[in-house]
This record gives sequence, structure tokens and C-alpha cells, in this order.
Amino acid sequence: MKLHVGKIKLVTLVATIKTNKFAFMKTILVIGAGLSSSSLIRYFLQNAEQENWEIRVVDQDKELVKRKLGGHPRGVALAFNALDPVERRPEIEKADLVISMLPARFHIDVARDCIELRTNLITPSYVSPEMKALHEEAEKAGIIILNEIGVDPGIDHMSAKKVIDEIEAKGGKLTIFESFTGGLVAPESDDNPWNYKFTWNPRNVVLAGQGGAAKFIQEGKYKYIPYTKLFRRTEIIELEELGKFEGYANRDSLSYRSVYKLDDIPTIFRGTLRRKGFCRAWDVFVQLGATDDSYVIEGSEKMTYREFINSFLPYNENDSVELKLRHYLKIDLDDTLWDKLVWLDIFSRDKIVGIKNATPAQALQKILEEKWALKEEDKDMIVMYHKFVYLLDGEHREVVSYMANIGEDRTYTAMSNTVGLPAAICGRMILNGTIALKGVQIPIYPEIYNPVLQELEEYGVAFTEKEIVPPRLYSQDMQPWS
Amino acid sequence: MKLHVGKIKLVTLVATIKTNKFAFMKTILVIGAGLSSSSLIRYFLQNAEQENWEIRVVDQDKELVKRKLGGHPRGVALAFNALDPVERRPEIEKADLVISMLPARFHIDVARDCIELRTNLITPSYVSPEMKALHEEAEKAGIIILNEIGVDPGIDHMSAKKVIDEIEAKGGKLTIFESFTGGLVAPESDDNPWNYKFTWNPRNVVLAGQGGAAKFIQEGKYKYIPYTKLFRRTEIIELEELGKFEGYANRDSLSYRSVYKLDDIPTIFRGTLRRKGFCRAWDVFVQLGATDDSYVIEGSEKMTYREFINSFLPYNENDSVELKLRHYLKIDLDDTLWDKLVWLDIFSRDKIVGIKNATPAQALQKILEEKWALKEEDKDMIVMYHKFVYLLDGEHREVVSYMANIGEDRTYTAMSNTVGLPAAICGRMILNGTIALKGVQIPIYPEIYNPVLQELEEYGVAFTEKEIVPPRLYSQDMQPWS
Repeated sequence: MKLHVGKIKLVTLVATIKTNKFAFMKTILVIGAGLSSSSLIRYFLQNAEQENWEIRVVDQDKELVKRKLGGHPRGVALAFNALDPVERRPEIEKADLVISMLPARFHIDVARDCIELRTNLITPSYVSPEMKALHEEAEKAGIIILNEIGVDPGIDHMSAKKVIDEIEAKGGKLTIFESFTGGLVAPESDDNPWNYKFTWNPRNVVLAGQGGAAKFIQEGKYKYIPYTKLFRRTEIIELEELGKFEGYANRDSLSYRSVYKLDDIPTIFRGTLRRKGFCRAWDVFVQLGATDDSYVIEGSEKMTYREFINSFLPYNENDSVELKLRHYLKIDLDDTLWDKLVWLDIFSRDKIVGIKNATPAQALQKILEEKWALKEEDKDMIVMYHKFVYLLDGEHREVVSYMANIGEDRTYTAMSNTVGLPAAICGRMILNGTIALKGVQIPIYPEIYNPVLQELEEYGVAFTEKEIVPPRLYSQDMQPWS
Repeated sequence: MKLHVGKIKLVTLVATIKTNKFAFMKTILVIGAGLSSSSLIRYFLQNAEQENWEIRVVDQDKELVKRKLGGHPRGVALAFNALDPVERRPEIEKADLVISMLPARFHIDVARDCIELRTNLITPSYVSPEMKALHEEAEKAGIIILNEIGVDPGIDHMSAKKVIDEIEAKGGKLTIFESFTGGLVAPESDDNPWNYKFTWNPRNVVLAGQGGAAKFIQEGKYKYIPYTKLFRRTEIIELEELGKFEGYANRDSLSYRSVYKLDDIPTIFRGTLRRKGFCRAWDVFVQLGATDDSYVIEGSEKMTYREFINSFLPYNENDSVELKLRHYLKIDLDDTLWDKLVWLDIFSRDKIVGIKNATPAQALQKILEEKWALKEEDKDMIVMYHKFVYLLDGEHREVVSYMANIGEDRTYTAMSNTVGLPAAICGRMILNGTIALKGVQIPIYPEIYNPVLQELEEYGVAFTEKEIVPPRLYSQDMQPWS
């Protein structure tokens, strides 16, 4: 539907047409058809007939888009460079809703287009300061730019804010809020001594925790954990049926005070979950310096794994690499941590790093990717855990809320489901007017989190809430010097 | 002497006049009159009559310049902003030699002026890539830009290259080169349990070792030490009469292979000296994260020293900060390291950090400055130590070369003497034609290092060379897991 009128008038007209929700078929533009878009696209296709949607999906890789669309009559496969505004803007203009699954730094340009072309936008990423600054413009354009609507951030916001709002509604005052999320391998596919496989970007896992101290507040005291202690100050979390996990601190827990309007809360802590025992073993690589991404190792291309490890150890003409490592990091002979290291083949004299000018982090990633790869039949798992302690009628109470979701297969993974479904559900609610908010938003309002959490349960993303008696008033188990 | 001719002709004429060395008084321009310029200015004034020099010294602080010149008839005190080319260039044009004691990043602009105005330049700083790129232009202009002519870099280059050249001249082949320098407190002023005081920029001491792994090569194996292990992998060095020191690795030892033309040497290692026991205690702050300069501590202005330390320790409702720290870093009750910490008053409930929005590094610097300040009567000390192992006639031999210089007082410190005298001596040799080199240079040639090292001996900067029998072929003492 192209009308040859002046640019401004055209936009106004398009806006008018878009708001008349029963008049025409709605168009959804999904930018990016990678792993994280699978469940999102499936949701849209499944609801396309009923809702009268056309789903236009763009990626540089047209075959990938076609596979994701599976020949669905409501799906349109597009292949162009979405970073090019000239190619992107006509599609944004045509759409009623854009979902940007681009890397986070590219959302801002898409957002500016969406404001100008009056098209609603959803991104799963954190609100950048530049994005935040667009709030009034977005409001004025009559659109919503909904961000942080994936799993973390996303489901964490919604599930936590629901409990927080309930506690506050009955007059409770939060004193402790802790929140942990982890992307892990499903128990049924968990067959290695690390109880871990790469279910998402391996590079991010290797670099996790770098770039600044972790900051949080506990009992009113600000606490800072440097990278070198991050994986040694963990909290053990045991969940019924799921077993034991450990959480290490995320970089910034403090900013969540304002997000959740808990400015005076004495204890707030956010972290990442791993299976128990992971962090202590991972710390070996941290202490060696093997996760460093700031310089290039000499001769990395032809280096054996053993030589790679040896490059971080003191020289000694008599001792083996194994003995030097045990001695250097004080690892006992019977420590199970050692089995984890040996299993990775880090002492191999045959396996070669094989990457030219690799940083230590890149070489380590290579070693890990061989061992931590998901097998074809493997499934992943997302685990989320919140702990709330609050004061009500002069008494402390504690409630925990947790969720574990297991992926369907290697396409519709738990990660893809938990990232994509909240965005997709919100997309439906924006298009049908259930979400009336405008401007730059995140999903912390009941009008968003209640229906989304409810619909997520249909997809197996369900939270269990439990009161803990007696309440654990001091997180003495937090940061043990394990 | 102003000639009103065209710009280019004037420069040519000035160049002609400058090369006619007996014709006129020579003018030396010293840019910067701070602590590191004291000995340099004194040397120039002492030799001004005999050499027929005028010494023009510029600093923003004219009183400082006047104090340094002490009313000497050959000294001219100037006060202007040397970073402003309009103010700086007439003085550079007038001069036969410029000594830039500006912070390193400003040398490059001065260097460009010096090339255009055909004035020789000396800086004590490392040759930046931009500076290196000026080599041919400087040669064409007929000037020398002599860099790295302080103590480290400077005296280290000269004293090491002298021994290296001697070994190579008799057919020896270097297999090990280690070099350490330290700025310390003189034994007669050494009255604290750290055996350390700030004799130079305190901020650099607090941040030392940050910003990348230390890199070196040992027995043909590349070795990398991350910051978290830097102060635990030290080499113990004992020097006659001076006692025990320890050296931790400098960031990049590898680049010295090409500087000294030792490209195939199997072991090269450069480090910084402290008194024995310092590094292990300093590592407490590294492990805590108290040297981090990347973020701001909440409430630093009103924070006690005790609260500062506590912010890096796990929360515990029962244990004291002392107990938590001992437990966290596994410090035994009878460890002498503990006395060092207590002596700094880090557990004080009264002393306040008192700096708004301080980073941990800034707060720690405040704590240390109170305790590590030089007293009025204190003297500093520069210690330098080189170890050379070489193969000659099929046999290994070892020679060590070391120097300790003690400052005269708080103005003519060992640091000021060892930074300023080499530059000043070279200045004399450039002006009287003894140094005929042109272009961008560092002092690694016999025509520079021989006379400079000889004259430095008159000022008490004298190296002792000793053969060690039997030679220590493997640096097994290097990087113990102390």
C-alpha cells in the first residue's frame, strides 16, 4: 500500500491506519533469524492466522530464514543487510511491530527509525543510556519501545517484580533480595565432570566477570569483589529435585535498586548460577591468567594445550606441568577439581591450539569448545532463583521463587524459549492493544508481567513460590570462603 | 639576535650559526622545573661559565624556577604554558638544546617544533611510536632527539649495554639477561616495617603492574604472569652490604630483545625491586581489590579505613574485620605480614578516607601517603641490578653488575640525580659535539654510554661488576612460589 503523498503526511496516514487495529492485517518484522529467534518466530507463525499477521523475517542468510519459517504461508523470508538504513527503513515503515534480535549495540539505530516511522519496537536487551534518552520522542510518536524482555533481563524482572509488588501490597518491607539465573545443560544431558556445556555464546562464558569488580550491598554495607575472588565467593543454592547450584556475583547488583524501586533495601545481590563445584575449578583458569583477552600469545598457532598451560607456570627444569600447576595453585592430589582439569585434556602433548595470534581467552575457548559442546541430542536448561526476605507486622518472613526450563531440542532450546517467548507474547499484546504503555519501557508493570507470566506457564516456564520457615535473616551462606 | 629575513632563510641561518660551536654562547632550554629537574638544572648551572651557556628554565610556577636557579647569573627564569606552541616556539627557536621534562605524552609536540626549528632535544621518556616515526625528519634537520636517558629507562640501557657489548666483543653469547631497578628509601631512613616509602609518584606505585599480564621468556619458553600473581612470583636478590631485595616482573620484558639486539636470547626478564617481604604484603591489597582504579566506592568521603577494608570482605555478623581478613586471605596469626598491615592503620575506626567519589586505588593511596611519606631528613635510594649469563669457549659464565645511589636530600634525591644527570651530561656532549649522532636515538652506543657512565661515577652513580662462580645456569630462584 504505497500512497504518493508528502513524506510527513504519509507517515501520519500510516500511523492512523496502524492504530485502527481491526482494519488490516498486521505486519511483524523480525530482524535477525539466529538461534535466539527460533521460538519467537514459531510463536508468531502459530498465531498468525488467528491474529491476521504477516511475519517478515530478515537475516543476511536467506536459507536460515527459510528454515525458520518452514514454508508457512504467513511468513516472508527477506535477505538484506539490516544495518543499512536504506534497506531497513522501508520494511520498518511497512511494519506494525519490529522485533530487533540484532546485537545490542545496533538497537539504537533501529529505534530511531521506529520513532520516525511510528512503528512499535521490542528488543530483549538492556536499555542503553542512548535508548533511555529516546523515551519522550517515543511517547510523542505514540509507540512503545519495550526492552529487557528476554530471560535475563526479562523473565527475571517479571517474576521478581510480581513477588515484590505482592509483598508491598500487603504492607511488607523488603530487606533482602537475591536473584540468580543460569544457562546450563539439562540433567538428562549432563554427562561431564564440570556439569556444564556451552548453551550460549562461549566467548561470553570465558570472559564472564571481567571488566570491573562485582558490586552489591549486604546488610547496608557496600561490597566489592574483584575478578580474582569472584569465583571463590559463591553462594550455594539447593533447589528441590534440581539439586545443588552455586551462584557467583554479577557485575552490578546496585542498579537494580532503582529499577525495582527498592532504593533503601539493605541487601541486594544478583548472580549467575552454575552447578556446584564449577566455580572453584573455573577459578584455576582465572588464577593462571588463561581467561585474559588483552594480549596475544607468542606462537599460539602451533602450541599444544600443555604448552599453553605451561606458559602461565613458573619455569622449572625438573617438574612436570602437572606438578607445577598443583604446586602453584595448591591443588591436593585427591581434589576432585583435578579430574575436571584432566578431563579437558589441558595437559595434552598432541592437541594443538591452532589459532594464529590467539589471546589466552581465545585459546582457552578452543580447548573448552571441544569438550563442552552440546551433542545433537543434548538439551539445555535455564534455572532462575529469587530469594525475598521482608518485614511484615514486625516479623521477618522469607519467600523463594524459582523456575527451571528444559529445552525441546537444539533449535527450540530453553534459551531460545525463555528469550523469545516473552518478547513474542508482548508483541501480541502490543498489537492487540493489551499493552497500552508508550515510550521506552521495561516489563516491570503488572499489566505486562501478569499476562506474560501466565502465558509462559503454558510453555513450561513456571515459577514455584515457597515460604521458608524460619526465614534466613542473614545470608551467612552467602560468600562463604569455600 | 633577530634577523628580519624570510622564515625559511632565517631557520637556515640559525642552523648555520648553531653549528658554529665556538662562535656564540649556547642556550639551553629546560621545560619543566619539577622534582626531576633539580639535579639537571644544577649540573647545567655548575658548568655554565666554563661552557658559555645560558640556562633558560620554564615552568608554570615562576617561584619554583627561581628557587631552582638560585639567582645564578647564567640562569633565566621563565613562566609560561609550555603546552602552548605560540609561547613555546620562540624559546625553542632561540635554543641550541631543549630538555623536555614534561609528562611523556607532550614530548611529541615539542619534538616536531625542534625538527622545524632545528634544535636538539633530550627527553628521559620511552620512545613512543609517533616519536620513532620522526627519525628521518630529525636526521634531515641535522638534530638529535635523544630519549630514554634517565634512570629506567636510561642508566639501565647504558650499564647493561656496556656489559653486553663487552661480552659480545670477546665472542660470548648471552643466554640469560635479567635486569631490575627499584626506587626505595635509603637504609639510613628506613624505619618502617614495609622497608618502603614513596620516593616518586605514589599513584604509579599503587597502580603498578595493572593493565596487562607481565610477559617474558625463560629458557626459550614464553611466560605470562597475570596481575593477581605478579607479587607472588618474585625473585630474591641479595647484594653485598645492601641486603636482600625482591623483584617482580615488569609488564613487557620481550621488547628489550630488539632494543639490545638479543633477538634469540632464551631468557630475558626485567623487573622492579622492593625490599624482601614487601610484595607478599602488597599482594593483600591486590587480592582484596583495593588497588582497583576502575570504579568509585559508595560513600568514600566519610568512610573509615576500617570500613574501606571491610567493603572488600564477605559479610559476617559475628566476625571482626581483622578475623575476616585473616580468614579470607589465609594469614597466620604469627605472620610478620600482619604487622605491616596493622602499622598502616588500615583497621582504624577513626581515620577517614575523606575523598569524594574515590576509587579504591585513590583511597588506598591516601592511607599509604600518611605512612609512607618521606620525612624532611629522609633520603631515597635507587638500586639497579643486572645479571648476565653467557657462553664462551663452550663454557657458561656469569657476571652481575649493580649500583646503589643514595640521595643527597629531599631536593637532590637519588631519583633526581639518576634521572637528571645522564640527560645533563648528554646535553653537554651534544652541545660540544662529542655526540655526533642525529635522528631519534636512545643511549645504547659506546660513544654515549662510555663517557656518561664514567662521568656518573663522579656523582656516586657507580656500577660494581662481579663474576659469579659457578654460574647460575637456570634461574631456579626466579619465580619461586613463595
